[in-house]
Amino acid sequence: MNLAMIRYILGYVLELESVLIAICGGIGLVYGEKQAAAYFIVAAAELAAGLLVKWKKPQDDVFYLKEGCIMTGLGWVLMSLIGCLPFVISKEIPGFVDALFETASGLTTTGASVLSDVESLAHCTLFWRSLTHWIGGMGILVFLLAVIPLAGGSNINVMRAESPGPSVDKIVPKMKQSASILYALYIALMLIEFIMLLCGGMDWFESLTLSFGTAGTGGFGVRNDSIGGYSNYIQWVIGVFMVLFGVNFNFYYYLVLRKWSKAFETKEVFYYIGIVAVSVLLIFFDIRRVYPVWDALRHSFFQVGAVITTTGYSTADFDLWSSATKWIMVTLMFIGACAGSTGGGIKVARIVIMFKSMLRAFRSYLHPHGVSKIHFEGKTVDNSVIHSVLVYVATFTFIFFVSVALVAIEGRDFTTNFTAVAATLNNIGPGLSQVGPTCNYGGFTALSKIVMIFDMLAGRLELFPILLLFYPAMWKEAVEQERARHSRQARVQE
Amino acid sequence: MNLAMIRYILGYVLELESVLIAICGGIGLVYGEKQAAAYFIVAAAELAAGLLVKWKKPQDDVFYLKEGCIMTGLGWVLMSLIGCLPFVISKEIPGFVDALFETASGLTTTGASVLSDVESLAHCTLFWRSLTHWIGGMGILVFLLAVIPLAGGSNINVMRAESPGPSVDKIVPKMKQSASILYALYIALMLIEFIMLLCGGMDWFESLTLSFGTAGTGGFGVRNDSIGGYSNYIQWVIGVFMVLFGVNFNFYYYLVLRKWSKAFETKEVFYYIGIVAVSVLLIFFDIRRVYPVWDALRHSFFQVGAVITTTGYSTADFDLWSSATKWIMVTLMFIGACAGSTGGGIKVARIVIMFKSMLRAFRSYLHPHGVSKIHFEGKTVDNSVIHSVLVYVATFTFIFFVSVALVAIEGRDFTTNFTAVAATLNNIGPGLSQVGPTCNYGGFTALSKIVMIFDMLAGRLELFPILLLFYPAMWKEAVEQERARHSRQARVQE
Repeated sequence: MNLAMIRYILGYVLELESVLIAICGGIGLVYGEKQAAAYFIVAAAELAAGLLVKWKKPQDDVFYLKEGCIMTGLGWVLMSLIGCLPFVISKEIPGFVDALFETASGLTTTGASVLSDVESLAHCTLFWRSLTHWIGGMGILVFLLAVIPLAGGSNINVMRAESPGPSVDKIVPKMKQSASILYALYIALMLIEFIMLLCGGMDWFESLTLSFGTAGTGGFGVRNDSIGGYSNYIQWVIGVFMVLFGVNFNFYYYLVLRKWSKAFETKEVFYYIGIVAVSVLLIFFDIRRVYPVWDALRHSFFQVGAVITTTGYSTADFDLWSSATKWIMVTLMFIGACAGSTGGGIKVARIVIMFKSMLRAFRSYLHPHGVSKIHFEGKTVDNSVIHSVLVYVATFTFIFFVSVALVAIEGRDFTTNFTAVAATLNNIGPGLSQVGPTCNYGGFTALSKIVMIFDMLAGRLELFPILLLFYPAMWKEAVEQERARHSRQARVQE
Repeated sequence: MNLAMIRYILGYVLELESVLIAICGGIGLVYGEKQAAAYFIVAAAELAAGLLVKWKKPQDDVFYLKEGCIMTGLGWVLMSLIGCLPFVISKEIPGFVDALFETASGLTTTGASVLSDVESLAHCTLFWRSLTHWIGGMGILVFLLAVIPLAGGSNINVMRAESPGPSVDKIVPKMKQSASILYALYIALMLIEFIMLLCGGMDWFESLTLSFGTAGTGGFGVRNDSIGGYSNYIQWVIGVFMVLFGVNFNFYYYLVLRKWSKAFETKEVFYYIGIVAVSVLLIFFDIRRVYPVWDALRHSFFQVGAVITTTGYSTADFDLWSSATKWIMVTLMFIGACAGSTGGGIKVARIVIMFKSMLRAFRSYLHPHGVSKIHFEGKTVDNSVIHSVLVYVATFTFIFFVSVALVAIEGRDFTTNFTAVAATLNNIGPGLSQVGPTCNYGGFTALSKIVMIFDMLAGRLELFPILLLFYPAMWKEAVEQERARHSRQARVQE
């Protein structure tokens, strides 16, 4: 294992985060807030640490999937651990576990908060919370590798670890270029939202933070009632952009390059729109009994968008809606957004492949000797991809069951335990019952919070980069390789 | 598709069920109950129908997996539809959907009841309820094919459709002989329990019905408090036998043949015992705070046994236990018993294979080019088996989510909807909240009951035999083949 390379990249991660934290300090200065000091202190210390860590450039800058995963897993854990310090030092969120929960929730674009009153926070703190969504949404390591000059060119392995979805090999031949286009799209779409919010009469600070939250499919707001207190126009704008950010970015990529046929081959997007449409209709007809027509349509569209894209904003307390509607919401939580979007969950592409493999099982009863292939997005899906999708879902389910068991120790009700884990593992934010849209995660024990921090990170990084950190065989092998390298070097020097 | 053969076997199914229903009528006569008349009427009508249906023996008695599945699916639906008539006619359960629910629950060894007061039922009705567990546990079609003289010898296809577990090819070369030994074991084990219950001072009727319920891992009792009112001795006996009936019968088969090494290669049994032991310990330490030591041990052992084997008897109202313990119970519901036992659920073997495929995914990150095999029970697990296990679990999850959505329409709470479907799809019986051990399924709407009837049948027959009945392509193909055959015959006659 190329540990030197992992160290080197982590140095870059620290540097980048320090710059972002310093920006939040700057926001604090603009508003004349004393909390800004905490941001500058952490930023300075982190910058120093980053410079130190990446002092020595590794001779060998090639790395593989394994290193890509470890680098990503460690990078995100490190960013959460340091990113929470401004909250602690400024005493905005004094408890370390609480602050860590909030930061991990921000970076993983979950949007689950331990705070009951966000309106009392300083601007710099609100800005940092929302900024974490934005950088978490775009994936910091892929971004870094698109800009760091490396000879090895094995960045695909980090992209594989950090990008949501079962397969990233579509547009990677020219990875750096592709990444730049995708980031440009991400920023452009966010700026359009920002301007549209400004047009709705919102001030620049709220417009920007809410655009960060939408772009990253995060969910942290700046008001205690999330999006509920804004005008209908604002709610529609945010609703539409949530759905837009849940779309597979390859679709936009092809649209921009005017590759129409390629774009329309991105079938996942059409399945995604279909699921959204059907869910909106079902929920609309259900809540129609309680709300006037246009309110019912707005709420159902907004909440479906908020949940399937795993953003987690809310305009209404959907915990009060009917049982059937709540179960549709829970189902959408697990389905999640498109692969290649900033959203979480299992991802529409995986659900479709899973569904097609079920249909193939049916066909195999009819024609046991026929060879039946699964087609998706214009090509045959390789058996190894189907297998890894199914294993992914199995692993996901396994983590889910264990997490609920651990969270259940503190004795809350079934619905709370179930949806708290569902909402963190799928990076949504609000769940049902005691973690409903009007509640928060502040009251959980430290154990439950740590379990959910793990779930948020595992969910955002698609399980394996985080799980591998707990896989003893990997560390054992890494240590052995390090030893072998040292003894080789020693022999060479003799 | 060999429709003639399906018809012929269904005739046998009707005949066999009519005999069993007549036996219940006989029990009614012994107790001088007027309800016995209903049993004799249905038995006579069904016998007549059976004779008519199998009047013409098909020329071609070969059939394949497809026919095996259809035969099994239709056979179980038919048995449920006719088996519920004595309940309706005798007015013991006057509603048709209720009676159908109770019969399907019995045959599928679920044990979920619509009745709140079973103590007011006639003996013949109690006996029929418990007898359905017994015949459902052993699998009526496999039994029939072991005794019907057929030249084709393709019975393996029915065994595959009706036997629980991912693979039945172990002991099938001499299928008829194997089936006989397995049934002998099943009956012997049940008789031992029967005698041990008699020794505990129970009368023959209760001993026999409760033994039926344990052997089939069903769960219908003859008292309103299930097993809670019996002596500690009785509770331990039933507890131990529940766990014994959850063991893979291949294990006993090898033990009886003194193939010790083969028996100890049945690793599933050891995983099963391990899961039982860990769960008993965890729950013991939890409920130890509420009960005296021996009561805590008895209740935890009994309830773990009742849930993992999917029997569903109860000695305590586990809905009152802690959240963590209840989640362990829910997890055990999904795990289920061993493949090749009479229990339901996903089955330990599938869970183990799923878990091993997760571990293989870890290894593949370390050694992307290494070929890593999964070993289980002394041999390499074929990739197609792994795939079908994963697809099975995916299909199971899909049915689960859709069923909960349909049941949720009637507006009950999250826990009730979730565990009602979990308890029926996994063939357990009691769930939590409004379907807890002290409650029943009588209050659900007809829609919810029909969904759960479907779930019980799908769960017992391992999904595909029931799902295939709803697969239009299959029926279309069958009709086309029939037409082609007719026109061929017409041409021959010309």
